[in-house]
Amino acid sequence: MATSGPTTSGADPDPNTANLPSSTTYDQAWMHGCTRKLGMKICGFLQKNNSLDDKGRLAGQKNLLSCSDNSDSRFRRTESDFSNLYARDLLPAKNGEEPTIQFLMEVVEILTNYVRKTFDRSTKVLDFHHPHQLLEGMEGFNLELSDQPESLEQILVDCRDTLKYGVRTGHPRFFNQLSTGLDIIGLAGEWLTSTANTNMFTYEIAPVFVLMEQLTLKKMREMVGWPNGEGDGLFSPGGAISNMYSVMIARYKYFPEVKAKGMSAAPRLVLFTSEHSHYSIKKAGAALGFGSENVILLSTDERGRVIPADLEAKIIDAKQKGCVPLFVNATGGSTVYGAFDPINEIADICEKYNLWLHVDGAWGGGLLMSRKHRHKLDGIERANSVTWNPHKMMGVPLQCSAILVREKGVLAGCNSMCAGYLFQPDKQYDVTYDTGDMAIQCGRHVDIFKFWLMWKAKGTIGFEQHIDKCLDLSQYLYNKIKDREGYQMVFDGVPQHTNVCFWYLPLSLRGMPEGAERQEKLHRVAPKIKALMMESGTTMVGYQPQGQKVNFFRMVVSNPAATQSDIDFLIDEIERLGHDL
Amino acid sequence: MATSGPTTSGADPDPNTANLPSSTTYDQAWMHGCTRKLGMKICGFLQKNNSLDDKGRLAGQKNLLSCSDNSDSRFRRTESDFSNLYARDLLPAKNGEEPTIQFLMEVVEILTNYVRKTFDRSTKVLDFHHPHQLLEGMEGFNLELSDQPESLEQILVDCRDTLKYGVRTGHPRFFNQLSTGLDIIGLAGEWLTSTANTNMFTYEIAPVFVLMEQLTLKKMREMVGWPNGEGDGLFSPGGAISNMYSVMIARYKYFPEVKAKGMSAAPRLVLFTSEHSHYSIKKAGAALGFGSENVILLSTDERGRVIPADLEAKIIDAKQKGCVPLFVNATGGSTVYGAFDPINEIADICEKYNLWLHVDGAWGGGLLMSRKHRHKLDGIERANSVTWNPHKMMGVPLQCSAILVREKGVLAGCNSMCAGYLFQPDKQYDVTYDTGDMAIQCGRHVDIFKFWLMWKAKGTIGFEQHIDKCLDLSQYLYNKIKDREGYQMVFDGVPQHTNVCFWYLPLSLRGMPEGAERQEKLHRVAPKIKALMMESGTTMVGYQPQGQKVNFFRMVVSNPAATQSDIDFLIDEIERLGHDL
Repeated sequence: MATSGPTTSGADPDPNTANLPSSTTYDQAWMHGCTRKLGMKICGFLQKNNSLDDKGRLAGQKNLLSCSDNSDSRFRRTESDFSNLYARDLLPAKNGEEPTIQFLMEVVEILTNYVRKTFDRSTKVLDFHHPHQLLEGMEGFNLELSDQPESLEQILVDCRDTLKYGVRTGHPRFFNQLSTGLDIIGLAGEWLTSTANTNMFTYEIAPVFVLMEQLTLKKMREMVGWPNGEGDGLFSPGGAISNMYSVMIARYKYFPEVKAKGMSAAPRLVLFTSEHSHYSIKKAGAALGFGSENVILLSTDERGRVIPADLEAKIIDAKQKGCVPLFVNATGGSTVYGAFDPINEIADICEKYNLWLHVDGAWGGGLLMSRKHRHKLDGIERANSVTWNPHKMMGVPLQCSAILVREKGVLAGCNSMCAGYLFQPDKQYDVTYDTGDMAIQCGRHVDIFKFWLMWKAKGTIGFEQHIDKCLDLSQYLYNKIKDREGYQMVFDGVPQHTNVCFWYLPLSLRGMPEGAERQEKLHRVAPKIKALMMESGTTMVGYQPQGQKVNFFRMVVSNPAATQSDIDFLIDEIERLGHDL
Repeated sequence: MATSGPTTSGADPDPNTANLPSSTTYDQAWMHGCTRKLGMKICGFLQKNNSLDDKGRLAGQKNLLSCSDNSDSRFRRTESDFSNLYARDLLPAKNGEEPTIQFLMEVVEILTNYVRKTFDRSTKVLDFHHPHQLLEGMEGFNLELSDQPESLEQILVDCRDTLKYGVRTGHPRFFNQLSTGLDIIGLAGEWLTSTANTNMFTYEIAPVFVLMEQLTLKKMREMVGWPNGEGDGLFSPGGAISNMYSVMIARYKYFPEVKAKGMSAAPRLVLFTSEHSHYSIKKAGAALGFGSENVILLSTDERGRVIPADLEAKIIDAKQKGCVPLFVNATGGSTVYGAFDPINEIADICEKYNLWLHVDGAWGGGLLMSRKHRHKLDGIERANSVTWNPHKMMGVPLQCSAILVREKGVLAGCNSMCAGYLFQPDKQYDVTYDTGDMAIQCGRHVDIFKFWLMWKAKGTIGFEQHIDKCLDLSQYLYNKIKDREGYQMVFDGVPQHTNVCFWYLPLSLRGMPEGAERQEKLHRVAPKIKALMMESGTTMVGYQPQGQKVNFFRMVVSNPAATQSDIDFLIDEIERLGHDL
């Protein structure tokens, strides 16, 4: 992407490139040349078109484009282009086509510059400011809304500022969430999706997207291992909602009368999930009327995996208390430890007690794409439902989460209300393709296209390579720090997923005896290092406590841009910032 | 946008421009010239860069660009550009920057062409195909996914085909849904949002977007009329989820113990909503454990507005049956009739019986922006919660829906689970800005930016003008057809919103006496006309039955591109297709 050489960041007005502590700098000369040429190109384009145009209408534009080839042309051009143009001058306005294309091309220039910088290790991950600083207005970046319109020039400045003060989640050194990276195909897919601006509820207005969703869900069900990929599914707005669906349909399957009569028609139902599982299961229990106390947390081993015997004991206990066990969630890749619950053993128990088995593979489901790692999800084919978020491990842009259901019809049975104004039975096409009534949503965003396009562009093997590489990288990190001075692993052994959990011990803590004082001090280390990291803007990684364990770092790798050098950088940075705390 | 003259559609390979029955055709010459210039521009750009580039790496690209200026250059260029490039050659690949920018520019050309055509009345709204036709593969458009990657050339073809076989929801003659139009500022906002690819759950990774959301929600609450815009709120994935939130928080406010204990901790709760209200209230009742039978439907007057006396009678009746009334939904702009329930009268009853009042303004909330029409929502300031979808009447791209809550804290109280790994209390910034725990989602898509940007670009007055214009247009339609031969209005009087509901009577039905036979025949007219419309691809408008009323057209105007001529076109088209049925 870039070759070594002197940095030109001094000439760049973006504060994100300044004062990086990185020892590696890059030659941005080609990049700058490219930007200038993009400017000249738009330049020539607009000059030609301008000569064809109604001069009078654009009289307000003093100087349509300044085409002098210097590095500030981007800013000067904007000043002279759009200061007298407003949203009302764009399509569908009369003669709106030309300013529309000009405006969109300017936006694209801003976005492609951002894309370039995202992958450039000489830029910061973020330029941190406190809420009050941004609210007070940073160098004219005013977030307040007003009655009167702003010029398109101001709108373009606002676009630049929005990106400038944000976080580059695709940066090779952004490790903060399970969703990282900026996939170019996925990005193109999202741009197209928003241009198509339609809705998934009927085939009528989203014919192509509806079919793509059906084919993709079938493919995902095949990978889960359900015969012929049969079953149902939907893309939902995130893993929490997908998990909520699983609880709803389990209830509908066993107690269909609850749909009409409410929870009073059922006995006291209980749900089981690991103490390491995602909080959305508990949230679903609360929201759907089970009550969070009826979501029973299962004990785990030291690696964060459910202990099957504990599940069985708690099922028996619940039954003895007069409760009716309904649903078990097995996590395929837990949020903090990256643990995979033993699905087959859990499935045995679910079969024995006739319970709905859901696998929350929001984070780990992607491993189904890898011949090397899919064994971690062995038994998933026995699940009744599966959550799988391609927007996590597979690098699909946010949002992209699927709920998959083995038994056909139960999803529609659970949710359909047959709204006549939307799902008319007397349409001219096969209305079984109108799947909107299966959802708890009415309108539903098109989340499928970017994913479908990425799958087309990479093939299954492309996803496999990405996943294998991320797991290799996390093993590289694990091997690097497991015996390194100043590090202490939160659990022993090679991580199952890309999660690597560890404490970093500043020099002052290394000799200290175990005990409350050390724990208290250690608890404050990760937040302090993280704060310094964010203020430096060099990298980002998450931390949290878990149970009795004080704050520790949770490193995750899902970013396709990350390399071993970025892992090395992270470790160097933690030591640089934390050594003397 | 376009001037009259001979059509050049014969030279255009897009089937969507062919065989339009419209009597109006447009000169596309300027447009074609513009496309060619955009092509040449990219052309020059790439040639220059190519000379700077590592020739070896791009050796596979036989002929980077064919710059001959003819109308097929777009297709030939693609063939020679991208056939040997794959997703793996794009960023973060080494030397991936140039192909990345080239690829994105090609995508942008496809998208800007689509934008142009969207607003061009000489193009079709859609090119209809049945599901089985698309599944069989249209001229090489293969939806199946495979193990091996496709070339970027194929990906670009897939992008074109996806748009070609889709529906132009921004077309001036697309009236099929409540969400129509393609706002250019909103589109730019979505492109930026997907490029930023982040998540609303914490200030940490979405500082600017989180603040924009807070400021915008406050502004919306001010427009609702709550003192100082105080309260809470969230953007949620659509009106159905926003309505579901309202039911959840009402339950939490009155029966907070349900969160932990489940519905068995509460008496039998009932919800009230009009028989004309959106089905999401009933869906929420079913999902949240109330049971759909405990969602009591209120009678309406002939215009579809709740009869307050019926509400009071049903509250009393429910109490007598031992139920506990909890929640009343008043609809501000119903889906089919566009009816506004009398909020003040309903609020009086809610106060009297101490019930939660929700206003579902998903469709009508936008009228708050209009000084002329906001009186239709008088009393909304007395609501406890409000749903308002800027993606409907205000033309914001999908999805953009807000749930607003008058009392601060109740939303967080209802939903928070305090997940330690995400919402650490010991961050360096003011963590009250981490609002993710208020949501039932974990990850949450950035829906705010496009809306914020549109508000900046148009000002409140821009939204007002748009809304007033749409209501004027629907009144134009109403005036045009109310006494016209062959039309029968579904209800009398000027519509409250832009919904105009009518039957069209083919000649064969006009003399027919009222009765079952006529009703049966009339019921089949709208589906038949709609099917012909979709096959012609000329326009789209919705139909449905409602209660005892057989299928009728529901015309809605939310599209900023629509003019009186488009309304005229719709009427001409209905008559052309339906006259002789």
